Amino acid sequence: MIKVGIIGGAGYTAGELIRLLIHHKEVEIDFVFSTSNAGNKICHIHQDLVGTTDQKFTDSVNTKVDVVFLCLGHGNSGKFLAQYEFSNNTKIIDLSNEFRLVNDSEFQGNSYIYGLPEIHKTAIQQANYIANPGCFATAIQLAIIPLAHHKLIKTDVHVNAVTGATGAGTSLSKTTHYTWRDNNFSYYKPFTHQHLGEIYQTIEHLNGNSNNKVHFLPNRGNFSRGIFATVYTKFDDSLDTAIELYKDFYKDAAFTFISDDFLHLKQVVNTNKCLIHLHKHEDQLLITSCIDNLLKGASGQAIQNMNLMFGFEESEGLQLKANFF
Amino acid sequence: MIKVGIIGGAGYTAGELIRLLIHHKEVEIDFVFSTSNAGNKICHIHQDLVGTTDQKFTDSVNTKVDVVFLCLGHGNSGKFLAQYEFSNNTKIIDLSNEFRLVNDSEFQGNSYIYGLPEIHKTAIQQANYIANPGCFATAIQLAIIPLAHHKLIKTDVHVNAVTGATGAGTSLSKTTHYTWRDNNFSYYKPFTHQHLGEIYQTIEHLNGNSNNKVHFLPNRGNFSRGIFATVYTKFDDSLDTAIELYKDFYKDAAFTFISDDFLHLKQVVNTNKCLIHLHKHEDQLLITSCIDNLLKGASGQAIQNMNLMFGFEESEGLQLKANFF
Amino acid sequence: MIKVGIIGGAGYTAGELIRLLIHHKEVEIDFVFSTSNAGNKICHIHQDLVGTTDQKFTDSVNTKVDVVFLCLGHGNSGKFLAQYEFSNNTKIIDLSNEFRLVNDSEFQGNSYIYGLPEIHKTAIQQANYIANPGCFATAIQLAIIPLAHHKLIKTDVHVNAVTGATGAGTSLSKTTHYTWRDNNFSYYKPFTHQHLGEIYQTIEHLNGNSNNKVHFLPNRGNFSRGIFATVYTKFDDSLDTAIELYKDFYKDAAFTFISDDFLHLKQVVNTNKCLIHLHKHEDQLLITSCIDNLLKGASGQAIQNMNLMFGFEESEGLQLKANFF
Amino acid sequence: MIKVGIIGGAGYTAGELIRLLIHHKEVEIDFVFSTSNAGNKICHIHQDLVGTTDQKFTDSVNTKVDVVFLCLGHGNSGKFLAQYEFSNNTKIIDLSNEFRLVNDSEFQGNSYIYGLPEIHKTAIQQANYIANPGCFATAIQLAIIPLAHHKLIKTDVHVNAVTGATGAGTSLSKTTHYTWRDNNFSYYKPFTHQHLGEIYQTIEHLNGNSNNKVHFLPNRGNFSRGIFATVYTKFDDSLDTAIELYKDFYKDAAFTFISDDFLHLKQVVNTNKCLIHLHKHEDQLLITSCIDNLLKGASGQAIQNMNLMFGFEESEGLQLKANFF
Repeated sequence: MIKVGIIGGAGYTAGELIRLLIHHKEVEIDFVFSTSNAGNKICHIHQDLVGTTDQKFTDSVNTKVDVVFLCLGHGNSGKFLAQYEFSNNTKIIDLSNEFRLVNDSEFQGNSYIYGLPEIHKTAIQQANYIANPGCFATAIQLAIIPLAHHKLIKTDVHVNAVTGATGAGTSLSKTTHYTWRDNNFSYYKPFTHQHLGEIYQTIEHLNGNSNNKVHFLPNRGNFSRGIFATVYTKFDDSLDTAIELYKDFYKDAAFTFISDDFLHLKQVVNTNKCLIHLHKHEDQLLITSCIDNLLKGASGQAIQNMNLMFGFEESEGLQLKANFF
Repeated sequence: MIKVGIIGGAGYTAGELIRLLIHHKEVEIDFVFSTSNAGNKICHIHQDLVGTTDQKFTDSVNTKVDVVFLCLGHGNSGKFLAQYEFSNNTKIIDLSNEFRLVNDSEFQGNSYIYGLPEIHKTAIQQANYIANPGCFATAIQLAIIPLAHHKLIKTDVHVNAVTGATGAGTSLSKTTHYTWRDNNFSYYKPFTHQHLGEIYQTIEHLNGNSNNKVHFLPNRGNFSRGIFATVYTKFDDSLDTAIELYKDFYKDAAFTFISDDFLHLKQVVNTNKCLIHLHKHEDQLLITSCIDNLLKGASGQAIQNMNLMFGFEESEGLQLKANFF
Repeated sequence: MIKVGIIGGAGYTAGELIRLLIHHKEVEIDFVFSTSNAGNKICHIHQDLVGTTDQKFTDSVNTKVDVVFLCLGHGNSGKFLAQYEFSNNTKIIDLSNEFRLVNDSEFQGNSYIYGLPEIHKTAIQQANYIANPGCFATAIQLAIIPLAHHKLIKTDVHVNAVTGATGAGTSLSKTTHYTWRDNNFSYYKPFTHQHLGEIYQTIEHLNGNSNNKVHFLPNRGNFSRGIFATVYTKFDDSLDTAIELYKDFYKDAAFTFISDDFLHLKQVVNTNKCLIHLHKHEDQLLITSCIDNLLKGASGQAIQNMNLMFGFEESEGLQLKANFF
Repeated sequence: MIKVGIIGGAGYTAGELIRLLIHHKEVEIDFVFSTSNAGNKICHIHQDLVGTTDQKFTDSVNTKVDVVFLCLGHGNSGKFLAQYEFSNNTKIIDLSNEFRLVNDSEFQGNSYIYGLPEIHKTAIQQANYIANPGCFATAIQLAIIPLAHHKLIKTDVHVNAVTGATGAGTSLSKTTHYTWRDNNFSYYKPFTHQHLGEIYQTIEHLNGNSNNKVHFLPNRGNFSRGIFATVYTKFDDSLDTAIELYKDFYKDAAFTFISDDFLHLKQVVNTNKCLIHLHKHEDQLLITSCIDNLLKGASGQAIQNMNLMFGFEESEGLQLKANFF
């Protein structure tokens, strides 16, 4: 049993970590840090846990835990780590965007590995510090890395993706007000979403530098969980070749699978899966990718990384029942 | 054409008033007062009005308009009226709960009439000051006043009603956050909702004093608009008698109708209607009542009252297309 | 007062026509034809009309009405017209896709005009036979015709659009089952939607022939009403130029407006409006277009066409209150 | 490892059983019987299972499995059992309403035990044949059995409960069509729901015969999963006494817990929990009870019963992550 600490315990991603780790065979939750909720029961905030745990939030940090998950707002991880010095044996998994780009990946003398197991499994297994990928970034990268791996991205890539309201975090805002969001649809940050940095970095790493653009339109859907991404680009070879190439690339992936049929979002909601479907029309390859933004797009992937780092079964604690309906 | 002023212009009920009055044949919107939005276009807040009006919010009040609607938070109408002295010719329609109870209905020497046209039509036609009923109070009263009118409420009354998220106002709160409300259900203030005062007042007025209670459980539904209320009480006579009694009571009502079939909420959403259905099981009469909480439950009824006060067609500006889907 | 007949009266578009025409000043609904519901009250099917009308469905057709709306399933309009011979004075507005393409527009010696008022207003005013545009086709064409009019479509056009469940009609199907659709997202007919024919026809008519493609991905949203379309293509000039060009093109449009702000779908739901927003990123012009698929995308536009054909005020009967929430 | 068979494999409850049993440590799914889908992969119907299992539906029945779950439509279990003769060692768990009432509980010489572990745990542990309770019946009984156990139901009981669309099964119907159900609310079978039989049977068993009625209004909510039930009746003692009584009654329950705070439905969705809250107003005790209708209300409880029958850990395979959002 390893000891786990969670920082920023009142947010969505911390809540999901607690929900998952509480049933993980190899883990004991040592503490859940939340300054605003210290002393309160965790189940007063994450209220589905009534009857499951009476553990409380703390405002003290055990710096000797085996692994700590940072679930702070973007920009606060570095500040937190500057304030609390963890033991050299403590592994750190940061869910923010602070250390994801290679240029940002050195901090306090430690190297953060980009935690996308589908391309960095070996490095993750040996890593002590992980920068957990963004949710849109995960869905979109998983859609295109088999192509990029074979240097088959030869033209612009067109991406349209829609995310649920949990993507915007727990804070109250106009666009997460029920009366606004219910039965509504909209986009934000057209072509300039902050996850493009991670995506371009991976494409360049695998496919090489080019002038090909990723035109990415991120939409707000009127649902709570999930990302449904459609990606298309020119592909000269046949659909069968593409399917073979994707199935081969993901043959050892623990959670990424190719579907023969058209996808719909609820196939993956409340699971750690990424489902991918391939379709070809004329010279365009359409790649569809679905994840749960809070699981494969955040906390589930963080635990997948933890499992790899500690040599646990990769899927331990992540064999989840989809709600599906 | 009469001149209308609206106070508290950024909220839901003011928005609905603007949407309705903008197409009302007898009315010109003189000003929409909102201190926080003064100088901004109305359509920047009520964004469906893009292309319909370029009018702006103001922070000045024309105290000589023919009628002013007060759409302020509960407790602020009196304060506002203490600050701005309207002309003696200005009629006032207050949408808050401040003047609804007889004990509260005298203010600044003016008498506020409880604006439920189904029981106070003549008084409303002669009134200069209206206390517009609450949304739950409207749905529930319309369900029971034909019984009360005939002094047929002889036992406790059981009321279960569910309202949409607009019932909670525009302010951001945990229970109107999309991720909380979506696919959820809950209640609040069980048996102690503030509208019970209006309801008991009407029952006593019509049915006489008694010890019979109204057990009212108000629920939060995961929809934006509408109230669906079920009400039952002991009724000794036949269903046919009840139907006849209700149809007779509402035969001249402009917006309250008896349905022969079971109801569902969307029959009335985005209309000023109240639909009522009657059903009997053993000795219990089940009365179902549906309204749109923002229209018949607030702004629509306010305009219905205005129409009566000024001698306009009662349904002018209120012949609305339901969205239904 | 003209006399109107509606064929196929139980479906969504017929229901919307009835809801609109019932309050139209210049119109009397002569009959609503529905073989499956003949003899039943209209309000038993279109249940929001309880209290509004007691009119019944018929199975007989008055072939002398001034105008008839065909709301039959795709492929059935021609068959119906072969069976019922209308008077020469009866104008016909067909809501199906049967006569929309120029090659299909001659039937029984009559020429059907493509009823998109933003480009064919004069022809519509003189027409006796109208092929009413498709819903996706309306949203997408209104997004691009100002460009096409100036022959500024010079590269491929990328379209991602999402429609509500009413887009699939009243028949029961897996993807309109509540448990499937709720909180879900998916697409269908990627790059091959049947409305592409209308869209290409208009582009070629205005912009001229070219090899530029329209890559159109139609999505199913988990809402009931509305289409939210995003369209982008290369545009060499400035955003200001684009805005000026669009505002000028639509300066006389009765229902199509340019918004300065990002759009969200509920701004247009339950209205006959099309709202358009323009945004530029690098060399790509992003055009966003929102309509209600059943109104501007079907029945509302049909009435707009009727108004033009009969010389009524173009917006008569279509000054609708958005539900917005 | 025991071998399990599932009959009626394409429906909601069978789907949930498969989702749960696939990760159950003590179980192997021997076959999933579905005549309409025989030969197809299970994941073509239960599409969240893509990547999890390639098992196929069969049209043959292994009558020697250790336990078989009957997930057939109400009225079909007896017919099925008449056709297929299972081994004497095969335990049967029937999810229909066919054997729930004591008068119906003998079939083919076997006695079906009513599978509500909170009151029949010992009998279930020794049983070979289980009649799994109804969903509404589970939520409502768990709300009142501590009272009934102490013979404290002394007046009528008022029940208002709302269920999700999965409660209506997979078949397509008007009230499960997305465009009808979305943002809607309604009821059905007022005061006459078929689960009242089970409920009265339990009350009489525990509390004794009386003339006290259960007034039960079952509502249709616009969500997919879950039941939220409010129950009130006269209670002479204090709230604290009631809480103590409930906590004591459920102190050994594996999945039924008392919450100190008001409840909302999503606390239990996608879990096997029942959460209960107690509140008192004047002389009325308000008991709120929430379950997931497909889990504690059907398939989860069926597996809980199986665990008890085979001596497995009661919660094995049922430690589920709520989706919560």
